[in-house]
Amino acid sequence: MIVEMKTRAPQAQIDAVVERAHSLGFETQLNIGTDKVVVAILGSNTGRVSTDVFAVMPGVESVARIMKPYKLASREFKPEPTIVRVGGIEIGGQTPVIMAGPCSIESLEQALATAEAVKAAGAVMLRGGAFKPRSSPFSFQGLGDRALDILAEVKRRTGMPIVTEVLDPRQVDDVAAVADILQVGARNMQNYPLLRELGRSGHPVILKRGLSSTVVEWLSTADYLLAEGNEQIILCERGIRTFETDTRFTLDIGAIGVVKRNSHLPVLADPSHAAGHFELVPCLAKGALAAGADGLLIEVHPNPVQALSDGLQSLTFSDFRRLMGELRQVAAAIGRPMA
Amino acid sequence: MIVEMKTRAPQAQIDAVVERAHSLGFETQLNIGTDKVVVAILGSNTGRVSTDVFAVMPGVESVARIMKPYKLASREFKPEPTIVRVGGIEIGGQTPVIMAGPCSIESLEQALATAEAVKAAGAVMLRGGAFKPRSSPFSFQGLGDRALDILAEVKRRTGMPIVTEVLDPRQVDDVAAVADILQVGARNMQNYPLLRELGRSGHPVILKRGLSSTVVEWLSTADYLLAEGNEQIILCERGIRTFETDTRFTLDIGAIGVVKRNSHLPVLADPSHAAGHFELVPCLAKGALAAGADGLLIEVHPNPVQALSDGLQSLTFSDFRRLMGELRQVAAAIGRPMA
Amino acid sequence: MIVEMKTRAPQAQIDAVVERAHSLGFETQLNIGTDKVVVAILGSNTGRVSTDVFAVMPGVESVARIMKPYKLASREFKPEPTIVRVGGIEIGGQTPVIMAGPCSIESLEQALATAEAVKAAGAVMLRGGAFKPRSSPFSFQGLGDRALDILAEVKRRTGMPIVTEVLDPRQVDDVAAVADILQVGARNMQNYPLLRELGRSGHPVILKRGLSSTVVEWLSTADYLLAEGNEQIILCERGIRTFETDTRFTLDIGAIGVVKRNSHLPVLADPSHAAGHFELVPCLAKGALAAGADGLLIEVHPNPVQALSDGLQSLTFSDFRRLMGELRQVAAAIGRPMA
Amino acid sequence: MIVEMKTRAPQAQIDAVVERAHSLGFETQLNIGTDKVVVAILGSNTGRVSTDVFAVMPGVESVARIMKPYKLASREFKPEPTIVRVGGIEIGGQTPVIMAGPCSIESLEQALATAEAVKAAGAVMLRGGAFKPRSSPFSFQGLGDRALDILAEVKRRTGMPIVTEVLDPRQVDDVAAVADILQVGARNMQNYPLLRELGRSGHPVILKRGLSSTVVEWLSTADYLLAEGNEQIILCERGIRTFETDTRFTLDIGAIGVVKRNSHLPVLADPSHAAGHFELVPCLAKGALAAGADGLLIEVHPNPVQALSDGLQSLTFSDFRRLMGELRQVAAAIGRPMA
Repeated sequence: MIVEMKTRAPQAQIDAVVERAHSLGFETQLNIGTDKVVVAILGSNTGRVSTDVFAVMPGVESVARIMKPYKLASREFKPEPTIVRVGGIEIGGQTPVIMAGPCSIESLEQALATAEAVKAAGAVMLRGGAFKPRSSPFSFQGLGDRALDILAEVKRRTGMPIVTEVLDPRQVDDVAAVADILQVGARNMQNYPLLRELGRSGHPVILKRGLSSTVVEWLSTADYLLAEGNEQIILCERGIRTFETDTRFTLDIGAIGVVKRNSHLPVLADPSHAAGHFELVPCLAKGALAAGADGLLIEVHPNPVQALSDGLQSLTFSDFRRLMGELRQVAAAIGRPMA
Repeated sequence: MIVEMKTRAPQAQIDAVVERAHSLGFETQLNIGTDKVVVAILGSNTGRVSTDVFAVMPGVESVARIMKPYKLASREFKPEPTIVRVGGIEIGGQTPVIMAGPCSIESLEQALATAEAVKAAGAVMLRGGAFKPRSSPFSFQGLGDRALDILAEVKRRTGMPIVTEVLDPRQVDDVAAVADILQVGARNMQNYPLLRELGRSGHPVILKRGLSSTVVEWLSTADYLLAEGNEQIILCERGIRTFETDTRFTLDIGAIGVVKRNSHLPVLADPSHAAGHFELVPCLAKGALAAGADGLLIEVHPNPVQALSDGLQSLTFSDFRRLMGELRQVAAAIGRPMA
Repeated sequence: MIVEMKTRAPQAQIDAVVERAHSLGFETQLNIGTDKVVVAILGSNTGRVSTDVFAVMPGVESVARIMKPYKLASREFKPEPTIVRVGGIEIGGQTPVIMAGPCSIESLEQALATAEAVKAAGAVMLRGGAFKPRSSPFSFQGLGDRALDILAEVKRRTGMPIVTEVLDPRQVDDVAAVADILQVGARNMQNYPLLRELGRSGHPVILKRGLSSTVVEWLSTADYLLAEGNEQIILCERGIRTFETDTRFTLDIGAIGVVKRNSHLPVLADPSHAAGHFELVPCLAKGALAAGADGLLIEVHPNPVQALSDGLQSLTFSDFRRLMGELRQVAAAIGRPMA
Repeated sequence: MIVEMKTRAPQAQIDAVVERAHSLGFETQLNIGTDKVVVAILGSNTGRVSTDVFAVMPGVESVARIMKPYKLASREFKPEPTIVRVGGIEIGGQTPVIMAGPCSIESLEQALATAEAVKAAGAVMLRGGAFKPRSSPFSFQGLGDRALDILAEVKRRTGMPIVTEVLDPRQVDDVAAVADILQVGARNMQNYPLLRELGRSGHPVILKRGLSSTVVEWLSTADYLLAEGNEQIILCERGIRTFETDTRFTLDIGAIGVVKRNSHLPVLADPSHAAGHFELVPCLAKGALAAGADGLLIEVHPNPVQALSDGLQSLTFSDFRRLMGELRQVAAAIGRPMA
């Protein structure tokens, strides 16, 4: 951390900064410029300390961070990429992983038909919502426990591993009994009681990026899960909130590159929620894959016009088949061929 | 809702839109322009239906909403302003309500000293965190249950009603046993399991605006609480996430005006979290009050340099006293004098 | 346009809205719901009228637009895609077009070496700045007229068409005497005097998206150029301003899909300015190409460490060669092979 | 500037950074931590050098700025506040300055009636647009030169100084012949040819903040004007582009506090453009004044329903009179009484 003192800050204020740094176990070095003094605070754990600890002290003009505030999720901490293994599938390995299925589980028929269709087209995992976070209390909230039973049945029949969202720390065990991967939605990225339960569960987790979270905050949140000893963490970029409204969110493919550069964790993309409209899903899906995503989460529905939620962004079976053909070409082009 | 059909959409597609509207219990009217047909979908509950229900249908170009998606929080539903009464204090009435205290409860001494100081300066409620949502797992997470005991003791000694945040649906009862108002933090605005417990509790709730939530989404979330029968809802603007970084968040005082125009609920402002720096708190506090906020939540600490969290944005006792003097002037100027 | 009247708006206010619509040459239709009256305003030019014209009238609650505010740039106005032809190169045709070169022209040696290197690697146009818009007055501002001479000389020797930015309406003729395509930078997207000169010039123009412009505003700006009779318009997505800072801007590949859906104009992407760092350029370049961009603008420098501007985001010759190899694979995968 | 080297960066790379710093005239100091080396680069002009100059060098992990990139606009450079004097009025002094008038000048009658009304209500300067930057080419673009003649006539008759926007570097002299203050609109904040002409003119300038400009970028732009020797610079916060759409822009009153803290320049606020709706103007006007703005720019029109532009955000004469009464109260409350 670098502490810039105000111009002509008295020596006592500089000394106080140095003392506080020492009291926290850090080393310091003084840089005495013509205009102002700068205190460098050094040590491998400075990332864990808030810049405020120094910014609040008298005579301090500003504090700049050098160590990033996340540690366990960083490539400096663990240089080799993390691969999460679920039922024989590797996430974060050479092959991109396509997870597809309906926004909400609506019935056994709907879920089973979708699972079979997406499996035939090349998806290797089934996604489907049991508990839905909806922005209006008057919207369909998911089938809940009944959806978990349906997912278990579909898994039995198709052999597909299951991804589903968990909203409530009290439901982690029930959902984990059925799901192979537990998903933390964008609105829950900083729901710490939920994160702590998921950390303890040891179950694989997809951590979606919050709507207005920086990559630094996202990786700091991954540290919560990693700090509990759960190393089965998969990130997922799903679009951020910006001023643009012609897409529902702005898919930030640059974040995929930043994660690959700064972290060892695998990162997926969700083109469906970012697009908000089925016609725009292929553009985002191909773009994210070419940008380096380790896989995609795509919404598919047997009859989007009748879907109980998010029909507008769901692909039909034939649209999904066509898109899978295109994604196979792109994956091969970037040296990561899919079966 | 207004459904715009694509240019030259065939009659069968128009008919299908009309039929779906009727099946949902709405009336329709056709507007046949030279270029395209527009279907108006009318009825007092169209706000409860997602625009996607029509946008997904073949031949539809776009769907515009007329009814807002929130209902119970709207001024159309309840024209007279809601006043929340807590221990003889009215929130949303004529007098602005100042709630002040430390970011985190650190000890009985700290909490009590702060309570007495802010009370003497004119604050009428004590705010203080027991459970802290922190973006790093390595930061101080609050004293938890011990902080609740301290808050109860401080309330006993000073008579000040207590505001504190609740993070976990499992803790609602314990926190409600001590706190007069339960606060939902910005990161939990769309934590629906938590909202449902709070709705059922019937306890007064401060609902902070999410970092990237529009006013429409915020009022829709208030509908969750109201739909459970809890009418003791207080909104709080605390700054939104934008590209500007010289303040920690951008306090959106326009949102205060929009809430006053479109909703009957009281709305506070939190200048401390928005500013992120104590020197900027007075600017935001005075601005929010003059813009029409029904009260303010302000962080105060006996010794900000030693605070375990958010010291940089905390006022000292003397800073707070000075600010209260200024706020009294502003409150009087806008015809809402404080004692 | 759809005008929603307030609940129980008196008939005289409704009549006034209808009259104003008629006075502007539009037809109207009344939709009388149980709660409120909605006036549909119909006609093929309603997109040209501001919603404010009705929103300001007494008794009006809100106004929703159906026709988009742009017209000449829309696919409804001109369904077949526009192809801009420059020196035998088609922009917006089947083959993606790679334009590469230094941020600033620094010398004949630098410009010529770069032109030859990028041409050998497969770029078909040379980009290079003569006049630089720099956020500090103390930064290098470009060589100006001398850079134009250098560009002319490089064009003579290599045969590569030239793209360069024009900042000042007084310089349009001078720049057009050398450049094959005139570029409008993001900060000038709404510099109307400049746009008008460019519209009149009839010269091909690259219109970069403004840092905080919606796609609708961008296409409305294209209407300025088209309205002057200049149909040689190429759009370029270059990243928008968001809260994320690990990339310099957020490349919005969804905007590429939206432009393709709603407009007939070709659209490029500029991964260099969005990335801000050379290590992130390949991720964005491949992503944008796979998402459907008609070409890319990429910064390349013989020695980025010594570049007078934007060295951090410039590729070396060997980095660019490697990236071109990857882009060729991606282009072939999406059915748009490059030579 | 603080240059963080990568973990285990070889000595040669560290040496190269040090050498480059020396070659630019700076001093350096090495901070050798357990994990990595940090090079502090010291000198009073480091703010003028881009961080990229070091970030691009091999072995560099990141570069943090200590000196701000603006200099002439900073309070460190000039501690005492700048007061701009125009026709006996002080901007940036004790008394807040209210400038009011129509969005566009539409006729002598309209301009004169408005000038007389706002003067009677307490405004001390007339604002009115001659050249309008409009996002659609089909909208009213202002009366141009004829509006300048009208403004000159109104000034003659009322004695009110005039503020009007200039869009085109070729028009600076003509506009300056009539206007007392030349306004740079938000869309032109980084129109450098225009800024240079304005800098040279020596005429007082209102520099509006760009829609997506940080305060740092805004003050850096002020440096352009100051560097040409023009010290008559007034800043104006007018709302930034965010995801919120219930107001047209988000008025960032925190920026007023930041400018007051970091710069010596006066800063106004424009509540009209931020609000976008006349009902929200008083909320923003009072909030900005209480937050410390040195004055306000407010749109007023004799008959907003008939205004040729921005009628929706214009106040009527009686609305403005009422607001001025409220503003006088607020100004007195913060110790800055208006006549």
